[in-house]
Amino acid sequence: MIIVMKADASPEQISKVAEQVENIGLKPHVIKGSERTVIAVVGDEQDATVSAMETVPGVARVLPILAPYKVASREVQQEQTVVTVGPLAVGGGNVGVIAGPCSVESREQILDSARAVFASGAAGLRGGAFKPRTSPYSFQGLKEEGLKLLAEARAETGQAVVTEVVSPEDVDLVARYADVLQIGARNMQNYRLLEAVGQCDKAVLLKRGPAATVDEMLLAAEYILDGGNRQVMLCERGIRTFESHTRFTLPLATVPWLQARTHLPVVVDPSHGTGHAALVPSMAAAAVAAGADGLIIEVHPDPQNAASDGGQTLDFIAFEKTMAMCRRVAEAVGRQLN
Amino acid sequence: MIIVMKADASPEQISKVAEQVENIGLKPHVIKGSERTVIAVVGDEQDATVSAMETVPGVARVLPILAPYKVASREVQQEQTVVTVGPLAVGGGNVGVIAGPCSVESREQILDSARAVFASGAAGLRGGAFKPRTSPYSFQGLKEEGLKLLAEARAETGQAVVTEVVSPEDVDLVARYADVLQIGARNMQNYRLLEAVGQCDKAVLLKRGPAATVDEMLLAAEYILDGGNRQVMLCERGIRTFESHTRFTLPLATVPWLQARTHLPVVVDPSHGTGHAALVPSMAAAAVAAGADGLIIEVHPDPQNAASDGGQTLDFIAFEKTMAMCRRVAEAVGRQLN
Amino acid sequence: MIIVMKADASPEQISKVAEQVENIGLKPHVIKGSERTVIAVVGDEQDATVSAMETVPGVARVLPILAPYKVASREVQQEQTVVTVGPLAVGGGNVGVIAGPCSVESREQILDSARAVFASGAAGLRGGAFKPRTSPYSFQGLKEEGLKLLAEARAETGQAVVTEVVSPEDVDLVARYADVLQIGARNMQNYRLLEAVGQCDKAVLLKRGPAATVDEMLLAAEYILDGGNRQVMLCERGIRTFESHTRFTLPLATVPWLQARTHLPVVVDPSHGTGHAALVPSMAAAAVAAGADGLIIEVHPDPQNAASDGGQTLDFIAFEKTMAMCRRVAEAVGRQLN
Amino acid sequence: MIIVMKADASPEQISKVAEQVENIGLKPHVIKGSERTVIAVVGDEQDATVSAMETVPGVARVLPILAPYKVASREVQQEQTVVTVGPLAVGGGNVGVIAGPCSVESREQILDSARAVFASGAAGLRGGAFKPRTSPYSFQGLKEEGLKLLAEARAETGQAVVTEVVSPEDVDLVARYADVLQIGARNMQNYRLLEAVGQCDKAVLLKRGPAATVDEMLLAAEYILDGGNRQVMLCERGIRTFESHTRFTLPLATVPWLQARTHLPVVVDPSHGTGHAALVPSMAAAAVAAGADGLIIEVHPDPQNAASDGGQTLDFIAFEKTMAMCRRVAEAVGRQLN
Repeated sequence: MIIVMKADASPEQISKVAEQVENIGLKPHVIKGSERTVIAVVGDEQDATVSAMETVPGVARVLPILAPYKVASREVQQEQTVVTVGPLAVGGGNVGVIAGPCSVESREQILDSARAVFASGAAGLRGGAFKPRTSPYSFQGLKEEGLKLLAEARAETGQAVVTEVVSPEDVDLVARYADVLQIGARNMQNYRLLEAVGQCDKAVLLKRGPAATVDEMLLAAEYILDGGNRQVMLCERGIRTFESHTRFTLPLATVPWLQARTHLPVVVDPSHGTGHAALVPSMAAAAVAAGADGLIIEVHPDPQNAASDGGQTLDFIAFEKTMAMCRRVAEAVGRQLN
Repeated sequence: MIIVMKADASPEQISKVAEQVENIGLKPHVIKGSERTVIAVVGDEQDATVSAMETVPGVARVLPILAPYKVASREVQQEQTVVTVGPLAVGGGNVGVIAGPCSVESREQILDSARAVFASGAAGLRGGAFKPRTSPYSFQGLKEEGLKLLAEARAETGQAVVTEVVSPEDVDLVARYADVLQIGARNMQNYRLLEAVGQCDKAVLLKRGPAATVDEMLLAAEYILDGGNRQVMLCERGIRTFESHTRFTLPLATVPWLQARTHLPVVVDPSHGTGHAALVPSMAAAAVAAGADGLIIEVHPDPQNAASDGGQTLDFIAFEKTMAMCRRVAEAVGRQLN
Repeated sequence: MIIVMKADASPEQISKVAEQVENIGLKPHVIKGSERTVIAVVGDEQDATVSAMETVPGVARVLPILAPYKVASREVQQEQTVVTVGPLAVGGGNVGVIAGPCSVESREQILDSARAVFASGAAGLRGGAFKPRTSPYSFQGLKEEGLKLLAEARAETGQAVVTEVVSPEDVDLVARYADVLQIGARNMQNYRLLEAVGQCDKAVLLKRGPAATVDEMLLAAEYILDGGNRQVMLCERGIRTFESHTRFTLPLATVPWLQARTHLPVVVDPSHGTGHAALVPSMAAAAVAAGADGLIIEVHPDPQNAASDGGQTLDFIAFEKTMAMCRRVAEAVGRQLN
Repeated sequence: MIIVMKADASPEQISKVAEQVENIGLKPHVIKGSERTVIAVVGDEQDATVSAMETVPGVARVLPILAPYKVASREVQQEQTVVTVGPLAVGGGNVGVIAGPCSVESREQILDSARAVFASGAAGLRGGAFKPRTSPYSFQGLKEEGLKLLAEARAETGQAVVTEVVSPEDVDLVARYADVLQIGARNMQNYRLLEAVGQCDKAVLLKRGPAATVDEMLLAAEYILDGGNRQVMLCERGIRTFESHTRFTLPLATVPWLQARTHLPVVVDPSHGTGHAALVPSMAAAAVAAGADGLIIEVHPDPQNAASDGGQTLDFIAFEKTMAMCRRVAEAVGRQLN
């Protein structure tokens, strides 16, 4: 923490702040500048007491220096984590692709989707069985029946099954069928759920909340890692901004920024990130060029009749073309895509 | 929905879109303008099929006309809902005040806080027992022990106890001690939790997620109302914007906007909404002037030594002054504050 | 500046950074923490060289400590600036009100508006003669003819005339007729224009750009103050956020935050800040409760037929009621409004 | 416009609104839905009168259907505009690259930069002579002396010179030396300046304002096109969001979105868009993969000693590597980069 004193803070006020820092067992470094004094406290950045010092007389403001994540940090583990589940490899130069419909709707729909996206290069199959929906009146998913259909698709294609879990009590059930548990954007800070998947032996795909900072996303990952589960993938899926021509704003600079700070692989979701099928191919290619370790893309046999998210979903032909383009871009930046 | 066709859409494309609308049982109104054609579809705004029509050839974009909340709407219930729990009345011309520490830390701390804030006019007592924290290394709350201390405080002052519940499995436990269940900002779209409190007979304080639109907040309320629980208060607690001098940006225009559209009362949280104790009194007064039906404010006997959120917490004296000012402002706008 | 070194920065890298700081004439304070080293540089915060050190090997990031505004700062001038022009007083306990139409449209329209808003308590008259419009096809204002009409209205009511200037070459012309030159939100960082009004002897109302931080607004004010003009009012008129139910998001916490850091008075514009006439009265009252030193409100004899901004404009009756409410709120918070 | 009536609007209110629409010469289409009535008005979207109808009794809200730009639209001109200036070609399958220092600082600095970036593939040379700076105390540029140095560099390399103009009165001067006039982000809505460059015979690079919507950017372009100058390039350079780990958030989905709606070529600025040199190479490659028609990148012989923006500036070696990667990515997506 850096405690910035007011320009007119008295010597007594400065001494008192330094003393308070010492009282909580941290070491104050008092630095007198030409215009004002700052007190640097290098130690436990989590200390709520230092942060509360903003209310002490003479203090102008308190600035944190360091982000408080630890286990997720590159400084703790230099080598990148590679998440490998069946044919799906995310990280280590591999661009792992997960594709499939927003929701599992029927046996035929999911099997057709699995075959088509697998043929185009997706080693992972996505499909929602438990759907968190903004409105209580929208389709809420097939639940366990949907999980069974996903497992049936895997039996045929061998793909890794990626599906969302929305509540701690469902973790065991979903983990029985799925290979990768997805934590949706709305649940990024549902700490009970993070703790539950942290104690599970399945890989986790953690989506960024639309208003979450990158530090908050890393701290959410920290909850999972702290529980003992080290197979965590981060997923950039767009943030809320003033832009309304896209559903969210997809900030790809997150990819290299995160990769410099964490060993966890970074996946990009251009479907939710844009909300419009017409923008997905370009943004998938852009994500690969930015260095993404994986992609997750919504694909459906008939997007116009999808039960959810049809407007942002590719059909099989558009997905095949997108994969071909992404494969060439991956090679151009020294990576490989199935 | 309004389906806006491209300027160069062919008559066949227009007919085909109209036909597709009819096929799903809705009525298309084709309007030919000087530059382009639009097709208005007035009916079930929730229809995912219409929304997916953006991918149909000739369509430029699809615009929703109506927000999809129903039970929460003023159009369904003209008269404002007044939430009354013990001495706490929120709505109907009353500005109900809920105050207390961020976290319950000890018997002495919570009893002192309860007495002080009650004396200054807070008919509700807040205090966190289950704390959702951004970092897994931060203080996580006293849990059931905290709930007992809150109940003990209520036994003395008679205040309504308001405390957060973070997981569906805790709802019964928390409801045994609390009068009002708070859904925190991070859980605004934790639908399982919303469903659980929807089936509970305690009032609910639903906080706006920092990236949630007002429509999304009303739809979250709709989950609770749809479960049968009609005692719901909405709480504006600030949104994430580019501003970094405050913890969040507190948009008070939400208050009159919501009040024109929903019968649910609207509470404002100037503590989280600003993140700085020095800004809380002004923003509390501003919220009352904007017509807020209630306030929720963090108050602690010794903010500098609070276990959490100390920087945004008032001490007893500052709270007393804030209440006095808010009481005068309430009168100025034709409302009353205890 | 605080230069945060990487956890694995070598002693050589640390020494080299410290040396570079010394080479540019500043003093480095090297602080070794348990996990990493930071180097505090307290001195000229404007130094571009320190900021560029982020690219030096071993450096994790560079954090500014201080905002770089000076003349606008409370630390330079303790006492609040009160801007007084004719009957209009902004600051020093006075809530000065400026009201009138978005655009000057005709002699009758501006004279009627001036009389009505003056009668309700507005000591300042607003009206646009030079209109910056988003589209080149929109009404662009009556230009000098509009200025003459404003001056004619002043001759009758005695109000202070507030009108926008959009280009340095127009400053002399506008200053010939107006009492207060308004710098619009789009021009907050039009530095040539800021320099031009800085050399003028008329008061200035500087509107916040919709994406400008508070520090950037203060630095824009600094351009004017630095030119010698000390009669500057800051105006909060809303920022761009993800909210779309209002035209902008009006963050009233700006008012107390600014007042603690600058001696310049702070005016609030609830018309642009919300974009909807129905929200203006509540937000005007909220602004006064938050401690605003002034209000600027759009009022028109017939909002539905206004040439611009009709949807956010009050008619005379709504304005009269708003003033009555604001007057009571001003008294409640110890201020006075005409 | 779509005028959405309140659910309880009376038949009289509906008729009256329809009548008002007719009175202003537009045709109302009244559509009665199961829950409410909407009135579609397809015609001049610019009509301020319709927009102001939000204040008419019975009206819930007024929604615009169409963006109001015309000349910039693909619907007006199908074929993409290709801006060609000397060796620089932007659009038509060419990825034109403009590179050079933030500010022109000295003869040696700009000549060295020009040679180096030209050798690496930049057909355009950038360099600021007139610098708009957030603080009045920062370096403001070499002005005409800087322009002369840019022209001298061009005489040697033959590159197209791109430099910013900040005021209408400077347009003639800058146009005497430069090939492309840059309108900076702060001036995107400085309409006098847009009008001035609209009457000039030099190509224009129009940067997006950090809070500007894509529609507002297209309307700003419309001001230039409307003046007769058709050589306009749009530049995405990042927007203001809650993200603070990057200087701005760079939303690359703007590229395909704009290209579908306008014939003007789209350039991306990864230097301002990220603010950190370490993120520039990845985001340059991502921009090319997203389909950008051009790149503008800050490069300096010695970024750590640059007079401005050093932290986001590449040195010659990093730029050479970036170009090599971007060239491969361009080929992968069927485009060419020098």
